[in-house]
Amino acid sequence: MNDALRITGVTITPVAFRDPALLNAVGVHEPYALRAIVEIDTDQGITGLGETYADEGHLHRLRQAAEAVTGMDVHALGAMYGRLADMLNGQTGTDGHGLTGVITSGGTVDRVFSPFEVACLDIQGKAAGRSVSDLLGGAVRDRVPFSAYLFYKWRGHPGAEDDLWEEALTPDQIVAQARRMVDTYGFSAIKLKGGVFPPDQEIEAIRALRAAFPGLPLRLDPNAAWSVETAIRVGRELDGVLEYLEDPTPGLQDMARVARDVPMPLATNMCVVAFEHLAPAVEHGSVRIVLSDHHYWGGLHRSKLLAGICDTFGMGLSMHSNSHLGISLAAMVHLAAVTPNLTYACDTHWAWKTEDVIESGTLAFENGAVRPPQGPGLGVELDRDALARLHEQYLQCGIRNRDDTGYMQLIDPSWAKRIPRW
Amino acid sequence: MNDALRITGVTITPVAFRDPALLNAVGVHEPYALRAIVEIDTDQGITGLGETYADEGHLHRLRQAAEAVTGMDVHALGAMYGRLADMLNGQTGTDGHGLTGVITSGGTVDRVFSPFEVACLDIQGKAAGRSVSDLLGGAVRDRVPFSAYLFYKWRGHPGAEDDLWEEALTPDQIVAQARRMVDTYGFSAIKLKGGVFPPDQEIEAIRALRAAFPGLPLRLDPNAAWSVETAIRVGRELDGVLEYLEDPTPGLQDMARVARDVPMPLATNMCVVAFEHLAPAVEHGSVRIVLSDHHYWGGLHRSKLLAGICDTFGMGLSMHSNSHLGISLAAMVHLAAVTPNLTYACDTHWAWKTEDVIESGTLAFENGAVRPPQGPGLGVELDRDALARLHEQYLQCGIRNRDDTGYMQLIDPSWAKRIPRW
Ligand SMILES: [Mg+2]
Ligand SMILES: [Mg+2]
Repeated sequence: MNDALRITGVTITPVAFRDPALLNAVGVHEPYALRAIVEIDTDQGITGLGETYADEGHLHRLRQAAEAVTGMDVHALGAMYGRLADMLNGQTGTDGHGLTGVITSGGTVDRVFSPFEVACLDIQGKAAGRSVSDLLGGAVRDRVPFSAYLFYKWRGHPGAEDDLWEEALTPDQIVAQARRMVDTYGFSAIKLKGGVFPPDQEIEAIRALRAAFPGLPLRLDPNAAWSVETAIRVGRELDGVLEYLEDPTPGLQDMARVARDVPMPLATNMCVVAFEHLAPAVEHGSVRIVLSDHHYWGGLHRSKLLAGICDTFGMGLSMHSNSHLGISLAAMVHLAAVTPNLTYACDTHWAWKTEDVIESGTLAFENGAVRPPQGPGLGVELDRDALARLHEQYLQCGIRNRDDTGYMQLIDPSWAKRIPRW
Repeated sequence: MNDALRITGVTITPVAFRDPALLNAVGVHEPYALRAIVEIDTDQGITGLGETYADEGHLHRLRQAAEAVTGMDVHALGAMYGRLADMLNGQTGTDGHGLTGVITSGGTVDRVFSPFEVACLDIQGKAAGRSVSDLLGGAVRDRVPFSAYLFYKWRGHPGAEDDLWEEALTPDQIVAQARRMVDTYGFSAIKLKGGVFPPDQEIEAIRALRAAFPGLPLRLDPNAAWSVETAIRVGRELDGVLEYLEDPTPGLQDMARVARDVPMPLATNMCVVAFEHLAPAVEHGSVRIVLSDHHYWGGLHRSKLLAGICDTFGMGLSMHSNSHLGISLAAMVHLAAVTPNLTYACDTHWAWKTEDVIESGTLAFENGAVRPPQGPGLGVELDRDALARLHEQYLQCGIRNRDDTGYMQLIDPSWAKRIPRW
């Protein structure tokens, strides 16, 4: 009884997958997005999968962590967290792309721990013959709704073939993008990544979406591109139009000022991105909705803790996404399935992705939602050929750290990052 | 895979066990303490155990809940919580004994759900061959320290044989009680249940304990028997003597007033006893330490949530106890073992108890601490003869609802309950 189920080794494989020329407040997505695939082996031959960021500093910390957890039982998650916290000893990662706010030392532990926790839960589930949902308290919904995630975009990367998705720089083009995405996936909510054009153009795009999709909740996320005054003006102009306004301006204090003067709830994945931010966010009334993300909230158990905190302190809960692959989607769906108060359709970049490392068929969108895989574990399997191909692509592509701003400046040397810009 | 592990039936057995004449702010313990033992059967023949209160209203709700959960999978804890919340539909229990504050509708769901959750985790663990600690993230400590729980007491119940413990009404007698308890169990902290005598007498007892046990942290819990002014005076007089002062006065607002003016942290199991109380407690700064108790905080997962909330909002965590049996102790030890920020020695009434429903030998105090049972599940087994005997005792004893005040008034008709009294 309680026979140990010990980690005998960890393989960390950075991969790169093609990414369209999606625009945001700090630049434009590079031609490849990076992820790290974490595979954990155990002494019982059961293996588990995790997926996380692959910037160099993070990869370095993951490799240190891989050594630190080798020999531990896959159930010893609390001890593993403590060991990684000790190992990192106050180190903080950097957010090169500038889209997720300040990374604290606690947040760094959470980022490093997350893929190990997910992989250990995958193993626990396989050992027990249960899904990860079951390990987390059981699904309370059998489908997890996602929102269409619209981006302003170029036709393609300069000098490369066109993307599979059309140019989208005008309100009409954004509506066309939404139409195609909603028709393809059946999404029941729409989010526009803003902060790209002057606010009035983005207001115009939102109004066009409202006219074209009268029944769908709309969200706008300018990634803190606006001053407090601009945020308040835009918020007031979009009264009755937005389900929520995401990160209009930087910082807990200024978000609180905006929150007091706009009619819709503010949401964030920038000013509340670690447990340290929750007490001040509650104190100041900075946001009414937190976007969870197990990749930086310390895995699935700690994302459930975040959910419980939001529930307890009267905040709503939605889910954030970076460009990701299928292992992450499986984990996101299990988490969302077991979280009663995750009542907003989740974000995903899924529609922008043309490659993956998992065997296809497990995760399918139906009416904008994904059913939690029935397991055991996460319920997804690695496609080793695909993994090798995307790793080779990583080696060849030359990108080692996400840098939307640097890439934009390669294309337009006059472009400058300014947060807030308007 | 994911074969259901379904509940086929639930047996709820009220039991009564002998309890000494322990005094508190609202009266005196009756000759028997009541508990309900919850046994869950499944279609795979695996059974699970839970333990909870046995007052009549609670027993009635437990029996309703037993029907509601029959047929559910033991992993469907989130759905089970939702179903019980729907079933209870805003009902609130009553706290007849007046020692745990207002019971909210959310707190009532948490009380009813708790023994079912614990029994389901017992089953999950047995099915997976893992301890409940492992299901909750794994132990982060291999021994769980408890505090000596001292009570003012009579020699015995009027008209009955003497208790196994001597009379304790004076500082010297309290010190003698502490000496015997610490010698027997090795406890590394001492708590005195106060609110029985005028504050100066209890200050004197604390000073006598400090002199007799210079190395042990001391706590005093008058169960809200004092006014704000008295609480501030006593708190100041005991500067440097108490590890924490527990519930000196009733209510979040008045606790906050005391907290501002006394040097030691305030702790509570009276003004923060449900998730609804956490946001106002944080806002007002009512307490620095919350005493968790899985019996009313909704089971082990939700007690972990409470722990995470305390950690996130800068509050410490200790653990509360009512008179309990071995199933509860096993659950308390698993919970404490997996909770990193439970840094205070836990309360237990264990030393006052002479009977149990579990087979002996699994749970032993060594140097004031208990090792988490290695499982599978909770790691304790029912002693069916003992269960039958204590159930018969329940049927015979005539007590159906805890009523320390009524019992005191039978003995001394002039005694009146007053909160606060001084
Ligand atoms: Mg965002
Ligand atoms: Mg107390």
